[in-house]
Amino acid sequence: MKFSTTIVAAAMALPMIHAAHHGKPKNYVFFLPDGYGPASETFARDYANWVDNATVVLPVDEMAIGYVRTKASDTLVTDSAAAATAYACGIKTYNGAIGVDDDYLPCGTILEAAKLNGFYTGLVVTSRITHASPAGFATHIWDRDEEADIADQLVGYAHPLGRVVDVMMGGGKCFFLPQSDEDSCRDDDIDLWSLAETEYNWTMTSARESFDSLHNGESGDFPFAFIPTMGHMAYEADRDPQLEPSLTEMAVTALNLLDRKSKEDDTSFFLFLEASRIDHAGHGHDPIGHLFDILEYNRAMLAVKQWIEEHDDTALLSAADHECGGLTLGVPDYAWYPSVLANAERTSEYYAAIYDEIVAFNYTESDKESLIVDKVFGGFGIYNVTSEEIAGLSVAPSVAIYLGEILAARAGINWSTLGHTGVDITLFGYGCNTEKMVGNHENTEVGMFMTAELGLNLKNVTKMLMANESFVQMIQPPADGKLLKRFQVDHEHDVMHAGIHKH
Amino acid sequence: MKFSTTIVAAAMALPMIHAAHHGKPKNYVFFLPDGYGPASETFARDYANWVDNATVVLPVDEMAIGYVRTKASDTLVTDSAAAATAYACGIKTYNGAIGVDDDYLPCGTILEAAKLNGFYTGLVVTSRITHASPAGFATHIWDRDEEADIADQLVGYAHPLGRVVDVMMGGGKCFFLPQSDEDSCRDDDIDLWSLAETEYNWTMTSARESFDSLHNGESGDFPFAFIPTMGHMAYEADRDPQLEPSLTEMAVTALNLLDRKSKEDDTSFFLFLEASRIDHAGHGHDPIGHLFDILEYNRAMLAVKQWIEEHDDTALLSAADHECGGLTLGVPDYAWYPSVLANAERTSEYYAAIYDEIVAFNYTESDKESLIVDKVFGGFGIYNVTSEEIAGLSVAPSVAIYLGEILAARAGINWSTLGHTGVDITLFGYGCNTEKMVGNHENTEVGMFMTAELGLNLKNVTKMLMANESFVQMIQPPADGKLLKRFQVDHEHDVMHAGIHKH
Repeated sequence: MKFSTTIVAAAMALPMIHAAHHGKPKNYVFFLPDGYGPASETFARDYANWVDNATVVLPVDEMAIGYVRTKASDTLVTDSAAAATAYACGIKTYNGAIGVDDDYLPCGTILEAAKLNGFYTGLVVTSRITHASPAGFATHIWDRDEEADIADQLVGYAHPLGRVVDVMMGGGKCFFLPQSDEDSCRDDDIDLWSLAETEYNWTMTSARESFDSLHNGESGDFPFAFIPTMGHMAYEADRDPQLEPSLTEMAVTALNLLDRKSKEDDTSFFLFLEASRIDHAGHGHDPIGHLFDILEYNRAMLAVKQWIEEHDDTALLSAADHECGGLTLGVPDYAWYPSVLANAERTSEYYAAIYDEIVAFNYTESDKESLIVDKVFGGFGIYNVTSEEIAGLSVAPSVAIYLGEILAARAGINWSTLGHTGVDITLFGYGCNTEKMVGNHENTEVGMFMTAELGLNLKNVTKMLMANESFVQMIQPPADGKLLKRFQVDHEHDVMHAGIHKH
Repeated sequence: MKFSTTIVAAAMALPMIHAAHHGKPKNYVFFLPDGYGPASETFARDYANWVDNATVVLPVDEMAIGYVRTKASDTLVTDSAAAATAYACGIKTYNGAIGVDDDYLPCGTILEAAKLNGFYTGLVVTSRITHASPAGFATHIWDRDEEADIADQLVGYAHPLGRVVDVMMGGGKCFFLPQSDEDSCRDDDIDLWSLAETEYNWTMTSARESFDSLHNGESGDFPFAFIPTMGHMAYEADRDPQLEPSLTEMAVTALNLLDRKSKEDDTSFFLFLEASRIDHAGHGHDPIGHLFDILEYNRAMLAVKQWIEEHDDTALLSAADHECGGLTLGVPDYAWYPSVLANAERTSEYYAAIYDEIVAFNYTESDKESLIVDKVFGGFGIYNVTSEEIAGLSVAPSVAIYLGEILAARAGINWSTLGHTGVDITLFGYGCNTEKMVGNHENTEVGMFMTAELGLNLKNVTKMLMANESFVQMIQPPADGKLLKRFQVDHEHDVMHAGIHKH
């Protein structure tokens, strides 16, 4: 799959940091590329250079201003929940925590503080909208896996401050459907989708046409939810544009919608954007999913930057939560080959599904093998397959990971872990005052900086949340779940130890 | 081994970038931490935090200003030679190239341009002084492995511009001795050590006392060479201070010496510093060698920063050439354990040598095993050794790598390659105008920036080098070596392919 790199900037300019503003930004955009490590950027840039046969830089290269330190309170390697809470609340907490501290007590988030100050707010992601990163900005629960509770809070139904989100886009419809629905991920009878519409005035939509009816943000009103998929939205490489808009389309539409509404009502906005699935492809050791979601993140970052050029009351910071997968370029012999990746049409997950279909069907063994060579390996760009590679497929614990690793190896790429890593990640900034964040910072400092720039007060929000005793009780872990989930005690080590969330 | 972290800064301040200077720096220091990737910094910081049981940042954390893109001309992953040439000459070249371009023609370096402008110049490293990084700043040869030729040029004997280096410190004495000497690495009869003294006026010294006689730079004259070891200088963790000063001691001594001499003669200086062996420990998968050489790099960076605070006519930029080893923190379960590393006394290379001694000696098999468990595994901090781990030692291709990987695994660390990787590396800066380098840059841009700051002209140097036809001929590859070393043709790939230097 060749990728048009008209998105990449031609110039190798120094980072363009607005220094003309001496005041504060009115609006803030925080853009989180989940699982995007330093090597992810080199990887996508080298690919873009190969496609263009020229030296180009990525849009984000021109916005790099610093580094972010990411450790959680209970381990040196964070998950997305603790990281989102660090950015949103400005506190370090344990892996798995959604908007709560080490004592499972709620912390006020920048999005909630914005809402209480009369701002408009948005969450736009490509994972389930109930996933850890967006959840950490607008909800509170002891465990990220309690996604039905998160959905309840997102629409305002179970949130002590009422509805705090004005526009949300992303996947995860299954958490809004009652268990009687065959697609439901809930274990109760709440029809949150209908409840949101009837009790909380949400426009709840799934169809691409409903998204298009926003006309790039020129139409539409709040609260508005566009949730086109039951689970995560598609990887960019697998996306069907008839069904799902791109992250860039959603980001620009949300920006225009928030800008129009906030100008109409003489207020500001806070928007959380996430390129959610760069991370998932890292866990899955899939260079294709990783690459094309990174390039889409770059397209969206460029779109936001261009939008800010016309709206200089808005500032942008962007940073990952953590690296994922340990992507290594140049194994073993100091070279890697972008050309190898250009032959894959879609992600390894897609071809693993094709494999399952072939195996399940009533083909002869020899037909199966030739179909696997042609449609699975061949589709994914793995040519001249060896008999060992074919044999390995049937015993691989994960067909998708197996395929991803074979393609990666042929490209001179290695992955060093199925999980996250501890490396500092890159901070990008554009617009008013962001040059103040040059350097190396804790993730909590990034959140506190945005909060201060918007003149918000998180402590007041925390007090309001704490005042609701039944809510504080509700978000605590059950008595038997507490130690089980948080501490994997290992007597070999005398230091803090991780939970094992692998998302 | 507990490490005193009095070197780490207590405050989590924003990076301290001097903005008070509107002119240009008089002197420049370029400090290269060889093989230091983004994860190396997180690794050492987390360790320092564990030792101090507090949140501290490393000295370099406070000087982070940007990112450096590192690809070579013939591959996406550079070696130290191509990277040094990129920094020194401002050009992209092939892996293995020392101060020459893709056509094996010499390029003028910043150090040579400084010397021709009347500056004083220095090379201070912990590898052999003839190794790729220092060589790339002061010599020219088609292949980094031609270290005898590099030594010849370093002293001025075979350099068309004469002697261009005023002070050098590092290892590699073997390349200065004639083949009749049992320690020699040369295959000719040139006694370069004596030649340097008699013909080029060098003070050539090996003894720690000779270094000490410089009195921190208050004494001593040019040209001065301190070369205490036949091969590389020791890893910091293995260093005997009776024999070898630390990199910090050498850096400060060189700074004071260059400053005193340049003030006496009303001129400027250019100093190249290198923490050379962070890279070697990455190749060797040794977390101890990597860690303590990184901490020594940080100590030296802090010393240079403090020196610049008292000498604001001097600016500092620092960046690695590339990452090495693919250090990954948090494998497999989102945690890593600094405490595990605190039990190792010295590097894996040191214990591998102990192993060789035990195996070679006339012990009984059972005595050998208990000595290995106690002195080799135990010395390196690997306790509760399994019988599989003991058995593996005798068949390991490299005992040092085997030990390093076992300790790393127990600490929750993984290595993903024995070679370099392509990831962008971090740019650090301190002093006059360095804030102009905030952002993401090619390595060549870093060199060109320093050159412009010092008002130097590299093209004139290149012209002078090119004018010496016999030199240009001498540094070319032999007819049969050319294709063999540069191009590892691989018909599977249609893109440029790497050489296989593993240093």
